[in-house]
Amino acid sequence: MSLNDRFLPESITSLIDELNKLPTIGRKSAQRLAFHLLRQDKSDVIKLSNSIAGIIDNVNFCEICFNLTEAERCKICKNHSRNTATICVVEQVLDLIAIENTNGFNGSYHVLHGALSPLDGIGPNELKLNQLKQRVAEQGEEPLEIILATSTSSEGEATAVYISEMLKQFENVKISRIASGLPVGGNLDYADELTLRKAITGRVGF
Amino acid sequence: MSLNDRFLPESITSLIDELNKLPTIGRKSAQRLAFHLLRQDKSDVIKLSNSIAGIIDNVNFCEICFNLTEAERCKICKNHSRNTATICVVEQVLDLIAIENTNGFNGSYHVLHGALSPLDGIGPNELKLNQLKQRVAEQGEEPLEIILATSTSSEGEATAVYISEMLKQFENVKISRIASGLPVGGNLDYADELTLRKAITGRVGF
Repeated sequence: MSLNDRFLPESITSLIDELNKLPTIGRKSAQRLAFHLLRQDKSDVIKLSNSIAGIIDNVNFCEICFNLTEAERCKICKNHSRNTATICVVEQVLDLIAIENTNGFNGSYHVLHGALSPLDGIGPNELKLNQLKQRVAEQGEEPLEIILATSTSSEGEATAVYISEMLKQFENVKISRIASGLPVGGNLDYADELTLRKAITGRVGF
Repeated sequence: MSLNDRFLPESITSLIDELNKLPTIGRKSAQRLAFHLLRQDKSDVIKLSNSIAGIIDNVNFCEICFNLTEAERCKICKNHSRNTATICVVEQVLDLIAIENTNGFNGSYHVLHGALSPLDGIGPNELKLNQLKQRVAEQGEEPLEIILATSTSSEGEATAVYISEMLKQFENVKISRIASGLPVGGNLDYADELTLRKAITGRVGF
């Protein structure tokens, strides 16, 4: 049950309204968060408020890979020890973070900021696809590997197919797709049929 | 797994840090919320930031009942149709809201802002107990009912006992305690022993 809060002061109900707009935060959670903030030191509340406002003017997209950055280029693109001849294409920055956390990839990224989804009105122009094509074109004759790490949903697969078609003309470019199959430690009888079928058809030499 | 976000821009990691301090919001949720905010319109982000800052200077305690208010008295104390001869004593404003939502109480409130908990260093002076005594004293000879609606935890029970002792000297004051027993719709075999024992010893005429 969400509590009716009509008799609370206006500034609290408007805070609850705003918190309630955030994903995964229902009315009751928003109320609890608001009351939590009311009990905190003023300085802590101001810090939270400022840190929210702080992302507005400070954060841009990296001009190369469209990761988030406060400068023109992101920390990964500025890092000269990263391999720029391997570009991992992801849907969103959270995916980039997930891959970085594996500590298993030393190439660079390209963040599309979404996946093709015609029903939601997201076509190629809504994503950073032209920028990817341009980036590949600027590579010239140098060998380049593009790893398609879009998600394994139908939108992610469609986006991967679209990109592989788009980059077909570049003969120096090798295109690969992240492997799909059983998660490590997974049991066969708990896997869904589609994942298991993918794991079998995508079998690799041992 | 919480994602390492060291390579994100400073303004984003500090936002994640601040969101992470909120109750029930872990590192991963904080990251998701931060990225959600990054995708929103500037105006919405500013609205959230302002509404958080807005509670600092605008919200006070009602001078009578210590409910939250932007004026000197809260909306309930200002409402002349409420019965001021019945005061419901609650631990926190959320409890007041819960009771208001039953639409079954037309008296006034007194918010203690906590319960006695010596181990946590919360004694009588940390709560609005003296203010309650003073409020009762100001009532003079008029009949007054105090409903002790502190929680049924050991702290809440101790607080209820303390208040009933504190107000013993006032002969015009009738003190009652909210009923404790089986929740409506509850099965006996699912109830814990303490609740069931309370429900039996606290039986009422039918």
